[in-house]
Amino acid sequence: MTVDITPTSEIFLQKYKPLIDKYNADKVSQMKSYNPEFYSKCASVIPSDAELDSQSIDPKAFLAELLTDSELKIVNDYTIEDLLSKQVDGSLTAVEIANAYIKSAIIAQLATNCIMQFLISYALEKAAKLDTYLKENGKLVGPMHGIPISLKEHLSFKGEVTHASYVSLLDSISSKHALTVEIFDQQGALYHVRTAQPQTIMHLDTWNMITGRTRNPRSTKLSPGGSSGGESATVGMHGSIMGVGTDIGGSIRCPAAFAGIYGMRPTTKRVSLLNSTPGFGGQESIVPTIGPLARSIEELDYFMEHYINDGKPWESDPTSVPVLWRKVELPTKIKIGVLYTDNLVTPYPSIFRGMRTVVDELKKHSDTFEIVDLTPHWFSEQEMLEIYTTNLVLYTIDGNKGQLSLVEKSGEPILPLTQHFFKFGGGEALSAYQNRQHNEIRDDNQLKIFEEFFKKASSSLGLDFILSPTNVAPAEVPAESFYWGYTSFWNLFDYPNVIFPSGVTHDVELDSGVDEKNLLSNEYEKKVWFKDDGSLRYDAAQFVNAPVGLQLTGKRFDDESVVAAVKKITKVLNVGRQ
Amino acid sequence: MTVDITPTSEIFLQKYKPLIDKYNADKVSQMKSYNPEFYSKCASVIPSDAELDSQSIDPKAFLAELLTDSELKIVNDYTIEDLLSKQVDGSLTAVEIANAYIKSAIIAQLATNCIMQFLISYALEKAAKLDTYLKENGKLVGPMHGIPISLKEHLSFKGEVTHASYVSLLDSISSKHALTVEIFDQQGALYHVRTAQPQTIMHLDTWNMITGRTRNPRSTKLSPGGSSGGESATVGMHGSIMGVGTDIGGSIRCPAAFAGIYGMRPTTKRVSLLNSTPGFGGQESIVPTIGPLARSIEELDYFMEHYINDGKPWESDPTSVPVLWRKVELPTKIKIGVLYTDNLVTPYPSIFRGMRTVVDELKKHSDTFEIVDLTPHWFSEQEMLEIYTTNLVLYTIDGNKGQLSLVEKSGEPILPLTQHFFKFGGGEALSAYQNRQHNEIRDDNQLKIFEEFFKKASSSLGLDFILSPTNVAPAEVPAESFYWGYTSFWNLFDYPNVIFPSGVTHDVELDSGVDEKNLLSNEYEKKVWFKDDGSLRYDAAQFVNAPVGLQLTGKRFDDESVVAAVKKITKVLNVGRQ
Repeated sequence: MTVDITPTSEIFLQKYKPLIDKYNADKVSQMKSYNPEFYSKCASVIPSDAELDSQSIDPKAFLAELLTDSELKIVNDYTIEDLLSKQVDGSLTAVEIANAYIKSAIIAQLATNCIMQFLISYALEKAAKLDTYLKENGKLVGPMHGIPISLKEHLSFKGEVTHASYVSLLDSISSKHALTVEIFDQQGALYHVRTAQPQTIMHLDTWNMITGRTRNPRSTKLSPGGSSGGESATVGMHGSIMGVGTDIGGSIRCPAAFAGIYGMRPTTKRVSLLNSTPGFGGQESIVPTIGPLARSIEELDYFMEHYINDGKPWESDPTSVPVLWRKVELPTKIKIGVLYTDNLVTPYPSIFRGMRTVVDELKKHSDTFEIVDLTPHWFSEQEMLEIYTTNLVLYTIDGNKGQLSLVEKSGEPILPLTQHFFKFGGGEALSAYQNRQHNEIRDDNQLKIFEEFFKKASSSLGLDFILSPTNVAPAEVPAESFYWGYTSFWNLFDYPNVIFPSGVTHDVELDSGVDEKNLLSNEYEKKVWFKDDGSLRYDAAQFVNAPVGLQLTGKRFDDESVVAAVKKITKVLNVGRQ
Repeated sequence: MTVDITPTSEIFLQKYKPLIDKYNADKVSQMKSYNPEFYSKCASVIPSDAELDSQSIDPKAFLAELLTDSELKIVNDYTIEDLLSKQVDGSLTAVEIANAYIKSAIIAQLATNCIMQFLISYALEKAAKLDTYLKENGKLVGPMHGIPISLKEHLSFKGEVTHASYVSLLDSISSKHALTVEIFDQQGALYHVRTAQPQTIMHLDTWNMITGRTRNPRSTKLSPGGSSGGESATVGMHGSIMGVGTDIGGSIRCPAAFAGIYGMRPTTKRVSLLNSTPGFGGQESIVPTIGPLARSIEELDYFMEHYINDGKPWESDPTSVPVLWRKVELPTKIKIGVLYTDNLVTPYPSIFRGMRTVVDELKKHSDTFEIVDLTPHWFSEQEMLEIYTTNLVLYTIDGNKGQLSLVEKSGEPILPLTQHFFKFGGGEALSAYQNRQHNEIRDDNQLKIFEEFFKKASSSLGLDFILSPTNVAPAEVPAESFYWGYTSFWNLFDYPNVIFPSGVTHDVELDSGVDEKNLLSNEYEKKVWFKDDGSLRYDAAQFVNAPVGLQLTGKRFDDESVVAAVKKITKVLNVGRQ
């Protein structure tokens, strides 16, 4: 896709363009000076940007070409538990772990453009300190000792610029860590990279005016999803073992699905947002969350358990809810409602195939899983239209004042998906009273979902979980993530979700058939399936190697059970660590 | 105080006045037909409305005159635990308990006009069923078996009119119980009365156009507080053993203090609001809470423990947070910050005296309590002005559209304190964006309070609790509750509070001295201390027998510790069950 985003504003060219150049030069300089020889080798092996952007290249293949065997073991094979035990038994140091992951992150950056900022010296110094501590004290600093965790850039990082992809914030230096950064820092995490997010952090894609577009770690011409697409590309490329993302409309979940990894949107208020985003406070109609992207469900569980139970965010943040991460027991028979389509926008064929494959497999284990088809019970197209409109209106109900002022300050060009977002639900500034009316629609439906689907009562289906697509596409074409409904629905109602790989990958042959007669006529369906000229947008050939990631949803504050259920499901599917 | 609230609207006189008359006639008819002889005796003993309204009568004295010794034991002496154990051992039946409390509620109504609606047959039938159940099963139905709990009227009650003091809702019948009503119902509670609240439920007084004004249970010419003033008068008069109130600005706490009893505003989302208020959903800037009014701190604790741990509201309400009511251990030395004045409005002399008396007593137990004077650390007058303005603006930021439409529908006259409320913070309808800006001021200060006062860190005072006045006056003159700041401050920031009697009562001699020179010049101080003509409003003679109730505040979601601390404090003060 070609979009003219040539900057023309005077202030941008004169004041901000030099700041962008300086910011990006630092990135290149860090990579080069870390290991000039390694960097040259990477540059010679990894194709040009133009090639990566236009072809369906699997960039993970570069790892084997560029890393040593011992480095490959570290970034490919060792789980968090392995890394911890090997540090304890002396067979691995934090410095060795840091070096391996810095190298894989450089490869990830050159192949997918996923890194916003490197923290190479910071990580190496911390690693050395951790090694000394372990030597002197005979024990680990904490549960994340020497574990390389990537951070979405908008989480404030003490002493560094935090711009949240706003060009106008390129000179804004954070005075302290975001609380979540602080918590894992105390637990011994190695921070070596901060990752890319889109302009305004409100695309389900990752494209901004500072570092450009991020690529998918399974197929470089596709989108890694967004807004935590820098995270999904980094984790998907084994550039970190785990990442910290944020989600207000699908921003952890789409990227996790698009990269074929695991991701979680916890119930709000369990993971602290303190100091995590510059500006934009006071919005509480759809509350953002912080959550993990990981390569295995066990590591995702590890993230949540230690963040909450050891990190105790409520001891620093009065908005955090003190609900510990509990050991849960699932029912002997797990009742799962299956939603193939949300009745508003029909998913692409590979998503249907992924859903069917998983359901067929679960049905073979009828001693463990009871499957209920949700279709006859779900909201109608008309009801979904009201819900999705409310969803969109609530995103833009301030008339986008916060975002606009930051974008306009630098004169940065407004990207197409930013324009798309600004017009959500009309994009008009509404009154506090109208905000309440939309909140009421939200609350009524949140209760309806609980009473009809989840409540343990005879009047309800009494489901334990809902299985649904994460997105209409397995991974989107860049700048074409238009419909947020499969994920934003759950932000609106704040039920927790985990994304997991289905084991199914898009297949150009199998997934090419489209019966246009069965498509709906609402505007969202049209936008997803057809171009503005009326021709079919969907083209099976585009999605080579795109993974189908599915979404499991549970009851509010019962995040632990969703994680536990995904462990059981992925075991049955034989989908393990990625 | 005389106010002209003569209704003139056609629709009011023609359509609604008859509904009001019918509603009130039912109340009288229930009282009379329950026991005509008892009712006549009450009517002859209890003075006329005019006398009660104009004199400082202590109406609790009527109980001894009108009840039998065994009834007096039930309503005066027996705690919840006593009532339960006596039912188990057969020395008391639920029907006997119900009859005693129905009688005391009739006395309470005739003396203080605290009852909105009687549920006499309902309570007697339920009591008979409970007795049968106990006989047949040899065990209690639940922790509230045969316990007479009063309900603030706006909590929906299945099959009954729920009007929330709006004349226009006098024909609105609830299709189900509020969840909180349902929870205690399942646990065996006896509901015999629904209690009065003010017009729009937004006064710190209790006066509406359906049942008129409610009187204070310690001095009939004073206000019982509001908006749960029907509750404080009922519980204060021993018309119920415990009551369910609601609080969005002080509505449990002021009434509890004014009546000399205990009250709690829990952290939001711990007690469910489901089906509790008609209309007005979607407002989340200052979230209301449901909480108990009780005669002892132990019974208040009992309410919270069994509501949360046995009621598990999150199994029915997805907005409820699943934090169990925990057994807490207080620090060996309890650190209490003491705030004599909020730096915006100076309390009346008896409040100062109450604070000093309590602090002096606590200081005598320096092994248990460490007292910190908060004055040098508290917000300045200027900062408090910003906070209180935000507080008020957030109450009325929808331009009072919800309330106005319901008031205008019936043409009911708008009472002076409703007018006062409508003009809070200017009373203009603002935008969603402005709402967010005010939310940000709220959130910044919520964090500041945590970081400066409560956080366990060297940069903080590291307090366990804050002790402060509940109100500027020990109990207000009717229709003169103008300043909400001592309580609404904590609604804005959502820290939990318990109100307890200090043991100090207003004393006309001791509390008469006022040094006008020391008063501040801001508009709120002026309104509280001076009449519109500039003469001093404060008159010590008005407050005969008014009790000084104080407010203890703790950390969010640490409600249990606040209750535990009040147990320790009131033990030291030798203030027990009221």
